[in-house]
Amino acid sequence: MVNIILCGGSGSRLWPISRKRHPKQFCKLIGENSPFQDTLLRNNDFARKTIIVTNVEQYLLAKDQTEKLGIKNVHFVLEPIGRNTAPAVTIACLLLCEDDIVLVTPSDHFIKKEENYKDMLNKAKKLAEDNFLVTFGIKPSYPKTEFGYIETDGENVISFHEKPNIKIAQKYFEAGNYYWNSGIFSFKVKTYLDEIKSYSEEIFYKSQDALKNSDTDNNVTKILKPYMEKIPTDSIDYAVMEKSKKIKMIATNIAWSDIGSFEAIYEMSDCDKNGNVTASGNILHDSKNNLIISNNKMITLIDVDDLIIIDTADAILISKKGSSYKIKELITEIENISPDITK
Amino acid sequence: MVNIILCGGSGSRLWPISRKRHPKQFCKLIGENSPFQDTLLRNNDFARKTIIVTNVEQYLLAKDQTEKLGIKNVHFVLEPIGRNTAPAVTIACLLLCEDDIVLVTPSDHFIKKEENYKDMLNKAKKLAEDNFLVTFGIKPSYPKTEFGYIETDGENVISFHEKPNIKIAQKYFEAGNYYWNSGIFSFKVKTYLDEIKSYSEEIFYKSQDALKNSDTDNNVTKILKPYMEKIPTDSIDYAVMEKSKKIKMIATNIAWSDIGSFEAIYEMSDCDKNGNVTASGNILHDSKNNLIISNNKMITLIDVDDLIIIDTADAILISKKGSSYKIKELITEIENISPDITK
Repeated sequence: MVNIILCGGSGSRLWPISRKRHPKQFCKLIGENSPFQDTLLRNNDFARKTIIVTNVEQYLLAKDQTEKLGIKNVHFVLEPIGRNTAPAVTIACLLLCEDDIVLVTPSDHFIKKEENYKDMLNKAKKLAEDNFLVTFGIKPSYPKTEFGYIETDGENVISFHEKPNIKIAQKYFEAGNYYWNSGIFSFKVKTYLDEIKSYSEEIFYKSQDALKNSDTDNNVTKILKPYMEKIPTDSIDYAVMEKSKKIKMIATNIAWSDIGSFEAIYEMSDCDKNGNVTASGNILHDSKNNLIISNNKMITLIDVDDLIIIDTADAILISKKGSSYKIKELITEIENISPDITK
Repeated sequence: MVNIILCGGSGSRLWPISRKRHPKQFCKLIGENSPFQDTLLRNNDFARKTIIVTNVEQYLLAKDQTEKLGIKNVHFVLEPIGRNTAPAVTIACLLLCEDDIVLVTPSDHFIKKEENYKDMLNKAKKLAEDNFLVTFGIKPSYPKTEFGYIETDGENVISFHEKPNIKIAQKYFEAGNYYWNSGIFSFKVKTYLDEIKSYSEEIFYKSQDALKNSDTDNNVTKILKPYMEKIPTDSIDYAVMEKSKKIKMIATNIAWSDIGSFEAIYEMSDCDKNGNVTASGNILHDSKNNLIISNNKMITLIDVDDLIIIDTADAILISKKGSSYKIKELITEIENISPDITK
């Protein structure tokens, strides 16, 4: 298989760790590696080659993190501007052979139960070889409103649904045949390119143009801005998945989460007996259910519960757990005072 | 007048700002200067000379902070170990002339309404010239349990009382003739030395011995440990004030507080409209009644109330307001892990 890793996304809800120039997928959040590195390592056993599609500004970051893991046979596609996932996947596929089986993965999610991951990929590979476009659905553990849903009938997809409100999410959850859309896909290159040509012709041809006029040098393909701008912006879900008749969904029970918020990181991390997620050097006195991410300083707490505490080199965030969605408002305020701290 | 400034006290309840080697009186807590520097500046207009009694380990710190203010005619008494306030004041008085009027001040308190301070000192000076030992009582604003109380009949002192429990504090508060003991005193040197000789003879003679055998060099008197150890440990309240018949108390309404805790610092500081005490560069979003003390980093809050947030170079403390008395327990835990962070 060839692993196409998509590295878009800014992660402004994870400020002050995630910054414009150092977005969340490249940040150390849980454990020793960044989510981008975890993605590389997770798929390296299955992939004979990796294509990393990233913004040109993050190229050195991505290259450095890849080299640190000693991963070989990597090709970088550098985008001057983002056009969402459909163009990114199309350009990557155009670099490959028609019969290659690809696994498309975002780089900003967590997967915990990796033993189920291998089974999931083996199932997907068979379906991809049979010319299906495979998507992966996660069995919902609660009626979450932050994810898109896939409505299914067995392996067949009835339809894709946008992020629902809580009432609709509850309905999906109770129905039993709705799955969280993981953003992971697998297919044969030819199948995908045929489908995108059928349903989103302009993306296909403009991506082909962009690739023809790119600067390619060894293992780096740099797309030029005038050509990238001509490609329509669209997600792979909209451009292909929702339209194609060749979709199959594999339902999996891997412990999966996007990295949408500090609350999501808390949920996916291992707690101590008081529900705290923290490095071992900190001292949490009479304090429960806190998330602490810090680098160098000792963090000490007395009598505080349910806080998100993030310490970085130039900024500290202390938020009530459940309120980190307000980081967006906070960043607007910061941009008026010290814009550098958001970059 | 001669101002004797006592610089004892470790301020372990103000960790991580206050450290064993850099105690609270020398730390920048509110505004630009340390409480020690505020004390020097406050009394400099009234004092023709200043004697600073400090532990030998804090000498350079005290000297440096004094020189930064450009204050002249300063003499340092360096103690190798602390023996409480009575020996410190006795040694300082033995360096002066019999007719000098002294003002003894701790260096770990805040005074806000300084306009009343001058009146207070003028009244005290007259009483001191008439051979009284003058103590200063603060009209209580609520039944505080952390201070000692002085029971009075007009200017006359009936008795001194230890820190009360809340029930007794309530009784004192309602009675109207009980005052907080500020730890500030004024008297003529001869009056004090006569009284300490009468009531605590050993402190007097052993202090005299220690001074005779000290290393004195220009404006520094260094007491030697074998002589300091021989002086009994006692407070000026116990050794003299509670026993003497020559006590007068001046009731004042200066806005006074000790620096016993972060809660005390919060109470004495200027709040913004949401009750937050913070430097201007921080952003407090939907957050109320917090105390923030930090140096270099931007602190940002979302939806948190009533927190004490202290950021220092190597440690951060986040405590519920009202719980900072547990810092003592915290320090015990820290000493098991990273003892250097308490020093």
